[in-house]
Amino acid sequence: MTYTPTDYNPYDFANRRHIGPSPAEMAAMLQVVGVESLDQLIDETIPAAIRQDTPLTWAPLAEHELLAKMREVAGKNRVMTSLIGQGYFGTVTPPAIQRNILENPAWYTAYTPYQPEIAQGRLEALLNYQTMVADLTGLPVANASLLDEATAAAEAMTMAERTAKSKARGFFVDRGCHPQTIAVIRTRALPLGIEVIVSAPEALDATQVFGAIFQYPGTYGHVRDFTAEIAALHAAKAIAIVATDLLALCMLKEPGAMGADIAIGSSQRFGVPMGYGGPHAAFMSCRDDLKRAMPGRIVGVSIDARGNKAYRLALQTREQHIRREKATSNVCTAQALLAVMASFYAVFHGPLGLRAIAERVHFSTTRLARALKAAGAKVAPDAFFDTITVEVGVGQAGILAAARHEGLNLRKIGTDRVGITLDETTDEQVLIRVLRAFGIEGVPPHRATLGFPEDMVRETEYLTHPVFHMNRAESEMMRYMRRLSDRDLALDRAMIPLGSCTMKLNAAAEMMPITWPEFAALHPFAPVEQAAGYHEAISDLAAKLCEITGYDAMSMQPNSGAQGEYAGLLTIQAYHRAQGNGHRDICLIPVSAHGTNPASAQMVGMKVVVVKSAPNGDVDLEDFAAKAAAAGDNLAACMITYPSTHGVFEETVREVCDITHRHGGQVYIDGANMNAMVGLVQPGKIGGDVSHLNLHKTFAIPHGGGGPGMGPIGVKAHLAPYLPGHPETGGPSAGGQRVDMTEGPVSAAPYGSASILLISWAYCLMMGGAGLTQATRVAILNANYIAARLRGAYPVLFMGNRGRVAHECILDTRPFAEHGVTVDDIAKRLIDNGFHAPTMSWPVAGTLMVEPTESETKAEIDRFITALLAIRAEIKAVEEGEITAEASPLRHAPHTVEDLVADWTRAYPREQGCFPPGAFRVDKYWPPVGRVDNVHGDRNLICICPPLESYADAAE
Amino acid sequence: MTYTPTDYNPYDFANRRHIGPSPAEMAAMLQVVGVESLDQLIDETIPAAIRQDTPLTWAPLAEHELLAKMREVAGKNRVMTSLIGQGYFGTVTPPAIQRNILENPAWYTAYTPYQPEIAQGRLEALLNYQTMVADLTGLPVANASLLDEATAAAEAMTMAERTAKSKARGFFVDRGCHPQTIAVIRTRALPLGIEVIVSAPEALDATQVFGAIFQYPGTYGHVRDFTAEIAALHAAKAIAIVATDLLALCMLKEPGAMGADIAIGSSQRFGVPMGYGGPHAAFMSCRDDLKRAMPGRIVGVSIDARGNKAYRLALQTREQHIRREKATSNVCTAQALLAVMASFYAVFHGPLGLRAIAERVHFSTTRLARALKAAGAKVAPDAFFDTITVEVGVGQAGILAAARHEGLNLRKIGTDRVGITLDETTDEQVLIRVLRAFGIEGVPPHRATLGFPEDMVRETEYLTHPVFHMNRAESEMMRYMRRLSDRDLALDRAMIPLGSCTMKLNAAAEMMPITWPEFAALHPFAPVEQAAGYHEAISDLAAKLCEITGYDAMSMQPNSGAQGEYAGLLTIQAYHRAQGNGHRDICLIPVSAHGTNPASAQMVGMKVVVVKSAPNGDVDLEDFAAKAAAAGDNLAACMITYPSTHGVFEETVREVCDITHRHGGQVYIDGANMNAMVGLVQPGKIGGDVSHLNLHKTFAIPHGGGGPGMGPIGVKAHLAPYLPGHPETGGPSAGGQRVDMTEGPVSAAPYGSASILLISWAYCLMMGGAGLTQATRVAILNANYIAARLRGAYPVLFMGNRGRVAHECILDTRPFAEHGVTVDDIAKRLIDNGFHAPTMSWPVAGTLMVEPTESETKAEIDRFITALLAIRAEIKAVEEGEITAEASPLRHAPHTVEDLVADWTRAYPREQGCFPPGAFRVDKYWPPVGRVDNVHGDRNLICICPPLESYADAAE
Repeated sequence: MTYTPTDYNPYDFANRRHIGPSPAEMAAMLQVVGVESLDQLIDETIPAAIRQDTPLTWAPLAEHELLAKMREVAGKNRVMTSLIGQGYFGTVTPPAIQRNILENPAWYTAYTPYQPEIAQGRLEALLNYQTMVADLTGLPVANASLLDEATAAAEAMTMAERTAKSKARGFFVDRGCHPQTIAVIRTRALPLGIEVIVSAPEALDATQVFGAIFQYPGTYGHVRDFTAEIAALHAAKAIAIVATDLLALCMLKEPGAMGADIAIGSSQRFGVPMGYGGPHAAFMSCRDDLKRAMPGRIVGVSIDARGNKAYRLALQTREQHIRREKATSNVCTAQALLAVMASFYAVFHGPLGLRAIAERVHFSTTRLARALKAAGAKVAPDAFFDTITVEVGVGQAGILAAARHEGLNLRKIGTDRVGITLDETTDEQVLIRVLRAFGIEGVPPHRATLGFPEDMVRETEYLTHPVFHMNRAESEMMRYMRRLSDRDLALDRAMIPLGSCTMKLNAAAEMMPITWPEFAALHPFAPVEQAAGYHEAISDLAAKLCEITGYDAMSMQPNSGAQGEYAGLLTIQAYHRAQGNGHRDICLIPVSAHGTNPASAQMVGMKVVVVKSAPNGDVDLEDFAAKAAAAGDNLAACMITYPSTHGVFEETVREVCDITHRHGGQVYIDGANMNAMVGLVQPGKIGGDVSHLNLHKTFAIPHGGGGPGMGPIGVKAHLAPYLPGHPETGGPSAGGQRVDMTEGPVSAAPYGSASILLISWAYCLMMGGAGLTQATRVAILNANYIAARLRGAYPVLFMGNRGRVAHECILDTRPFAEHGVTVDDIAKRLIDNGFHAPTMSWPVAGTLMVEPTESETKAEIDRFITALLAIRAEIKAVEEGEITAEASPLRHAPHTVEDLVADWTRAYPREQGCFPPGAFRVDKYWPPVGRVDNVHGDRNLICICPPLESYADAAE
Repeated sequence: MTYTPTDYNPYDFANRRHIGPSPAEMAAMLQVVGVESLDQLIDETIPAAIRQDTPLTWAPLAEHELLAKMREVAGKNRVMTSLIGQGYFGTVTPPAIQRNILENPAWYTAYTPYQPEIAQGRLEALLNYQTMVADLTGLPVANASLLDEATAAAEAMTMAERTAKSKARGFFVDRGCHPQTIAVIRTRALPLGIEVIVSAPEALDATQVFGAIFQYPGTYGHVRDFTAEIAALHAAKAIAIVATDLLALCMLKEPGAMGADIAIGSSQRFGVPMGYGGPHAAFMSCRDDLKRAMPGRIVGVSIDARGNKAYRLALQTREQHIRREKATSNVCTAQALLAVMASFYAVFHGPLGLRAIAERVHFSTTRLARALKAAGAKVAPDAFFDTITVEVGVGQAGILAAARHEGLNLRKIGTDRVGITLDETTDEQVLIRVLRAFGIEGVPPHRATLGFPEDMVRETEYLTHPVFHMNRAESEMMRYMRRLSDRDLALDRAMIPLGSCTMKLNAAAEMMPITWPEFAALHPFAPVEQAAGYHEAISDLAAKLCEITGYDAMSMQPNSGAQGEYAGLLTIQAYHRAQGNGHRDICLIPVSAHGTNPASAQMVGMKVVVVKSAPNGDVDLEDFAAKAAAAGDNLAACMITYPSTHGVFEETVREVCDITHRHGGQVYIDGANMNAMVGLVQPGKIGGDVSHLNLHKTFAIPHGGGGPGMGPIGVKAHLAPYLPGHPETGGPSAGGQRVDMTEGPVSAAPYGSASILLISWAYCLMMGGAGLTQATRVAILNANYIAARLRGAYPVLFMGNRGRVAHECILDTRPFAEHGVTVDDIAKRLIDNGFHAPTMSWPVAGTLMVEPTESETKAEIDRFITALLAIRAEIKAVEEGEITAEASPLRHAPHTVEDLVADWTRAYPREQGCFPPGAFRVDKYWPPVGRVDNVHGDRNLICICPPLESYADAAE
């Protein structure tokens, strides 16, 4: 006997862990699909002409190898105490929140709460967030987060432009705003023809502007009252925006009390690690009469079918069915997970705790200022909260070096000042070290003296809602977090087959490094040599993304897919301008495009020309050619999605690109469907000049219940010089070398939400080139398997020339409408089966778009198919008149425990209602509310916590 | 206006996070209790004579300060690649298991699954564990884990003694067993009069022994077949035990195939970090006819009230109502959490993956051996799996140093050999480094040649059950873990008011450090200088525990409370022996003692004399004095619990101690109720000579669903020299200084489950001395509040002289028996309210003992009281004849979703059945099974996975 060793590789992450179907399952699926091999399926799906010619090369790492590498790279970062401020602060993440939210898949794998019945937990947490922001800013309405403070400021500017009665074209920016805020505002204003005036508040001429933004505490620390300026703006019918800081507002007079119309800022310091720039949640609040003009998602309160309170995303049509070329904002992805963390931070500390933390920070700052002044230093400003500056003249370099020697990063301001911003983590030892850097030994005693005038002391209460007055014992907090997460259905319980959203596995190994202090505690403007680990990671990820996409350069700055689109179009625009073609302003967009495409074009001031679809769903080539010709010398770009939003690899893509190039236009290929291409098709090689990648789709960043995301853009070499720059780091560069900034930034931080780039990097490293390619192939197999199994029950639209779909398929449910069964009925009925609905009514109204991704196993997909076939049978019963749609379980879905407990008067049995085929029995997910009433919610828009609601629902 | 700062400390962990009731809640509770202040309540509860005179001193740390300190201490450990073996191996913990089990409160805060209806998830995971152990060892029955390999060996010895038909008094131990195994066996054998014969297997004389233990792979690597020795034993009617390694059994002939009766070992290398010694799960399997003699917990399969499959702890009466002075084992706490991890490791890899890992390890070892032999080294043994030794003569120190220079720890064997044990983490680089330490450059090519004879190749299949053939995609694994945890009710959802079990908060900050590699990856026998961080932590914890208890020295070795009792009694025994009083062998134990007390006394060969209780539950002082006098010079010890198991601070405790001392006995004070004493009463100052502490009760180590635990013992100075030693570290020492071993060890590792000591240390550091004291006071308040609120509805037993209980209270439910309502009915009905039952029928049959701990808030306690009052009302309805007990919701409890879906024929409405007062409505916990049939389960003992069961329950 000779021993025969196995050739099984237990550490093969790509094939055993990430990719769902086992080899045996795949064989069975291929048979159903009707092909001999996966190769054959791919050949039938992707036109040969556009196939990638060289495979992706790098070798995969096992999970433990990845973690070892990550530790090594983490060790190259140096975590110093950063007192740089400028919008980023040290903060103490409560361990209970870190473990139970940020490190808990029940929270981080959730999708955006468009299906409110399965999202009551995160909707409650986000409502808490809105309540917190509204309370602290003293304005009645807040949204559920924006990408970062700088983009929030830019959004506020355009919101002011939309709502101001003033017809002036100027926008005033307080020079006390953070430099990156000013830079992003300038970027945003330029294509819109808004004249940005940056100056001291005293210099404001309210008649010249439709709006103004002021900041306090200012970037250099000043605290001041803008009541007079705001009154002047209002007299001129202009809008007043205030950028501020939530922690400071626990002591300081709030924007609402100054008369502000809009407040914005970052909630990072509420327990969210700096992460070398993000992700963090920016906030926005406003006057009640402006609420319908507010960008971003707003959680509102409505009722369910039994009249019980239920939360939902309010005014949803503004976003999901985004206003396309009429849009003024392309905001879509938010920072839900981080907003949830910040809201729990407020719940965890309560108003008294937040005030105590604010005082701790403030009195440490006054103590530091006293010591510096006593030693003769020139300290500014007179009124401050947490930030002071010191005039150091030619000694600047020496002071900065001495501080670094003490393990501190101070802020370099101009050539003769340094800035010092204290935070929650500042203890007496830090004060001693700061003073030592100035050659001062010891620290004066703590004293509760204010560093700002008494008339700036806040006079109103905040966080009065019971949820912020919970008992703060960790047991209660932990249970509250658990209860909320249990109300939701996320990827940790079932597949989420959302077409175009690519809800794939977010592996534990990918998530672990982001909370290591070496990655979490870095300030985005820390000296570059302290971030060597980050730069290694970012450069290598960028190189791999270039290899994947066939592009030559990558900008890691955009914080979301829509931001990526916007940044890509800006890059095209800057390129045209540099070629003397600044007049080119027409953008061709197919009618089937995602709504953010025209919205983004709109934001850069391009004129959108819509191109028709052919009956098979492809771009109508004739119409495209005609419109390109009509645009002629004015053609700036086309924006197409590949594979198309219909889930088809269009054979004509090269022609579309050629036509565009022939007319001098640039081709933007939307990378939303990149999960169908990695390793097989390179957008940069089939004619694309720019693409964005949704790292939170294709590259395994979790959706976090509606963000964070990352939308880096890849470009061909000729566009590389025009990628976004940043005032702190200069022009586009990946690796720390500074190049002068020519183009402005689109995000507050140079590398966007840098810390979650690590997730995508880990994903690429563990998959290896071959694993990524196989993932794409299996994603296509899974989608074709679903199409093959379901096409007998539901018409499958847009199957491509050879009867294949790409990585998703569209099920037509329009025929059921005449019998009263809506796409909503099917979506809600799927909840009874324990599934999140597929994408509804997009890209075709009345359809469901299903994307299983490669991560789902055949068993889970079969469970989903079982559910959809059972639903089809229920529809058939309606079609055949056995039951009306109104009386059927379809309309009563989702079924709740309340339905079971109550008297049962339905036309079908309890068993059928609650346990349809595909549903788990023992492990059934029960939605906490029945079908939510959307109309009621939008009619009665309530977006702070309902007054008498209690967080607990114990029956007494 | 002058600004008034708040004096709120948001970082006060003790008062805001750990201690449940807020100040306002406490005030309300004190009023109900009927005292002016907490001081007054404590004065009325604890006799002045026994109060501690000096407060605990150390200052508390905030959570972020604790984590910073932990990082600093972690940095003092040096993680090298340990190839020491000897029962501890490097292993790769799959990240999905680390995150979703070890770092997930749903798993780690669960209690032992005595209430099966709320524990189906962990019971399934433990059944998987048993199946895995049974399969791999080739024996039909396995238990759900033991404390460590060495104690498992000792338990197997006594099991052999109980079951062998041979009347010989010898026990043979293969000298190839690990030194610590041999040492623990010797410790255990000594007081039982068993003669331990350590020799080579060849030297076995089967007629001299009732049993024998052999090991393969041996501690020095040998792999051999014990079939002949086992046959000889059987011929002599003796029992054959085999110590082995689960990974090796994936390639090697299994113990069952050799005819072994019992197999034991450790499952550590199945994904459980070494943690400087533990915790890890040891296993035991045996022949079918021995199963009822097996120690430890066994999960079995039974049915619920609807006849559906349900898991439960089988043969439970053996443990919970432990056989007291007739006991032969005191095993109680197991290593449930680690057994769950190991079982998921097997599910994660499946049989093929495990075999591939075994081959990886084995072929690396043969490769290494080839290289060493080729270079002329003397390598032994001839047949090996993962361990070889090399004769190095006088070069030993040099080789060990060279290895350390390469970042490797080899095993020092005698003065002229080194041992090398490879593991899952060994890659080619490690082989190169090992060889370099021997002066050999390079490594020969991989070859799949066996290092043991072909007739030792395993011929049978293993892990054939479907659960080990699940699709191994991480999505599936994650969802399986989630589904199982969702079936269970743990502290992360509700209070667990178990009297005597002290189910308090296990804070996230306390749990975080244990998975840091600097703590997790240390081998227990690594050179002491590599473990400086551990020694700092262990020493400081020991010092604090001494300060708390009033003892002079502390042994951190015992792995559970019962092990602590046993170690404490051994210490007393050794002391007597050293004083020339080896004849003292009588131990006085009150009738109310926990069953482990007499069981432990039995294990050290003491004669237990039971002392009566007075009617008020106190020790009957007269009886005690009489029995002590009767024992006279033979009095070895008394064992008392303080406060008593009745939850009362007995005034007479000093007298009991005095009487014992007067007769030359030593006082053992059981520390199970230490949570009522910390900061207020010191057992070492009221007369105790030894106490154990349950760190998993009082000191915040989570219960992990039935372990891990830690039971260190504190002793007065005169006993300190007799504390357990260890062959690797010598005598008792805390801090790394070696003292010669005089007493043997009780655990495999010198500091027991060292890594979880960090949890207790973190707890002590964050609480500070004052916080710990306040925790005790509030624990007493919470218990008295419950007693005050419920005494009108349920008689409260044993209220103490001044009408106060200590930290728990006993509710008398015996009066309901005559109406047919049992204590079980009440316990199961509490599940409908979303609560784990209190301790049932202990210390008094037919009662419930409630211990809320300080961590529960008034709101949660009130919810519990609401539930119990509603249950009382339901009992009243039975008492008054409105409904029979059989027809009442009490008997039908717990109610499941199946009850709701089915036709309802009950005498009460669905609403009453499912939503009794106190139950959450939206967030209701639904037990996955109805009431479990205990008798059926014990009659039909099935303790491996049922053959046709599938892990998923999707309805098709």
